[in-house]
Amino acid sequence: MVVPAESGASSTARHPTLTAIVDRVHPVDQAMVAAAAAHQLRLTKPPGSLGRLEDVGARLAAIAGVVPPPVPVAPAVAVFAGDHGVVAQGVTPWPQEVTAQMVANFCAGGAAINVLARRCGAGVTVVDVGTIGDHVDHPTLRRRKVRPGTADLRVTSAMTAEEAVEAIAVGAQIAEELVAAGADLLVGGEMGIGNTTASAAVIAALTGRPADAVTGRGTGIGDATLTLKTDVVADALTRLDGRTDPIVVLAEVGGLELGALAGFYLGAGRARVPVVVDGVIAVAAALIAAAVCPSVVGYLIAGHRSTEPGATVGLAALGLEPVFELELRLGEGSGAALAVPVIQAAAALMGEMATFDAAGITEG
Amino acid sequence: MVVPAESGASSTARHPTLTAIVDRVHPVDQAMVAAAAAHQLRLTKPPGSLGRLEDVGARLAAIAGVVPPPVPVAPAVAVFAGDHGVVAQGVTPWPQEVTAQMVANFCAGGAAINVLARRCGAGVTVVDVGTIGDHVDHPTLRRRKVRPGTADLRVTSAMTAEEAVEAIAVGAQIAEELVAAGADLLVGGEMGIGNTTASAAVIAALTGRPADAVTGRGTGIGDATLTLKTDVVADALTRLDGRTDPIVVLAEVGGLELGALAGFYLGAGRARVPVVVDGVIAVAAALIAAAVCPSVVGYLIAGHRSTEPGATVGLAALGLEPVFELELRLGEGSGAALAVPVIQAAAALMGEMATFDAAGITEG
Repeated sequence: MVVPAESGASSTARHPTLTAIVDRVHPVDQAMVAAAAAHQLRLTKPPGSLGRLEDVGARLAAIAGVVPPPVPVAPAVAVFAGDHGVVAQGVTPWPQEVTAQMVANFCAGGAAINVLARRCGAGVTVVDVGTIGDHVDHPTLRRRKVRPGTADLRVTSAMTAEEAVEAIAVGAQIAEELVAAGADLLVGGEMGIGNTTASAAVIAALTGRPADAVTGRGTGIGDATLTLKTDVVADALTRLDGRTDPIVVLAEVGGLELGALAGFYLGAGRARVPVVVDGVIAVAAALIAAAVCPSVVGYLIAGHRSTEPGATVGLAALGLEPVFELELRLGEGSGAALAVPVIQAAAALMGEMATFDAAGITEG
Repeated sequence: MVVPAESGASSTARHPTLTAIVDRVHPVDQAMVAAAAAHQLRLTKPPGSLGRLEDVGARLAAIAGVVPPPVPVAPAVAVFAGDHGVVAQGVTPWPQEVTAQMVANFCAGGAAINVLARRCGAGVTVVDVGTIGDHVDHPTLRRRKVRPGTADLRVTSAMTAEEAVEAIAVGAQIAEELVAAGADLLVGGEMGIGNTTASAAVIAALTGRPADAVTGRGTGIGDATLTLKTDVVADALTRLDGRTDPIVVLAEVGGLELGALAGFYLGAGRARVPVVVDGVIAVAAALIAAAVCPSVVGYLIAGHRSTEPGATVGLAALGLEPVFELELRLGEGSGAALAVPVIQAAAALMGEMATFDAAGITEG
């Protein structure tokens, strides 16, 4: 991690709500990583031949504190939605109303994340933490609006520090509720027109990289808009003036759904349940969570590598290798949900494969 | 494809068994690729944002001849086993008896492929097409031994052309049986100590690349053994003397399970069912199948990119982009089985996502 651990301490001390969350995120059991590696060597396959699946298995073992780890059987997806004042700068061709339209689509079950969640037997909890206007009228929508969209991060604070902490608390609470209802593997997603701009700013701020190293084409913008978007991120960083406190970064240049996702990861860590990280917005949220509480990183499994450059920068800073490189750039938690069967397979292989001894197989 | 199409014609003409298989492999419906792309643009997501999943969906549509393609619901795995005389050269630290021991492990359900097949609801059909010694004593084993292991491909023909064709026919028949029993997505795997050496020779022969560009560490050999293995492949290519007829290549430097897998792909094409290609041995088999009948390539979906260099060379020659890059190098069909949920998801997304019109969402 590029982020200094002490930045989290200074930030949480000022926010009792955050302290209450972070104090219960215990480190994963690192001794299980070596135990998992020893176990893998006894299974009927050439050493190391399951590649990254062995790393995923070791992570699950460290979280569960046991080798082999249990196979997650009850995944649950939460999608957090929020709007972004920075769309006023013209960083995306999509109108802001699409955020709420997609919230309705999530509630109706018609979006990609709904299809992928159904494939792995997971429900989708849709949480509005900050769309503009009224809440979408749907009985299953979780109405947890912290504020109706952020302010334009190019020119002013996106939100207050109190609102940032409140967004985190919402995400942590949703994670806790899902685990209380039986979930043993969490998947976090998001929706927010303009949120790749906020994510680029957060990733730059927390990794020390310049705007042009982390800003990408989002939903598919052209060269002129990319130049504008990079300038917007650079201006936000100038306004931030080197501050790296994660709550300050979230409040100044982040987004409400980013805060909620960061809280969702912290809530997963608090509940000692693995949580799958999606694309660039999720990676930005993971960086915030890690800066607030470094121990949370042990609970994260990177689902895929988004095509956004900030995702690669952020994953490297977090020390995470993604399961997939599928050139996805959709968000919603789609790449994370797609990784669920692979994560389940990684655990099943550890628990169900025969050992050389038991199968009577000669070792090479 | 590097492989000239006419090489297949000349080869099949001399082998009536092969002609009977190949004549019924019809090209996939390429018009469906454009129709699939047009359909993707109507779904509620930014254009292209599902990355390689959109390519997989288009392949499934071309095979099924309809957009959206049906979601495969009945995957079936077949694992073909054979031994290799080239182990006498010291190309691997694993004793040859491990092939039969792993056949017993497959039959008993303890290998990685068994675990992964169970995860996706697939049965595993274990087919011995050429282990040394007697058949493993298990009621579910398919006893289809063409010959007890190949001869040492460094110094002589691995098998006769007739045996090569017989191995292909076994694989094609197994594919046909699985589809007749209800399978709508096939996964091919293999087991054979020494078979990365044969695969490297086949890939080099059919792509025109030199031995050192396609020879890898297999189960994890050191530098000295890799040098020896590369020399063995180079000597096999010298013996082959530029011949590229796929049956000649299979007979001279291939393997019985490679032939059966090539036949399995042809059988899938004949049955118009998609088939998932695994690692480097599977890629070598796919090159043979493609050289026999170029139309078969349309039915192939590459499951993953093995760490073996020959896999990347072969996939490029076939024009296939793999679903995963998970650094797997196990074989057995493991990487292909792992891709099944992703392939199913690709089809489900096309069929189940809402369209912009239906969901009332503004396009960007």
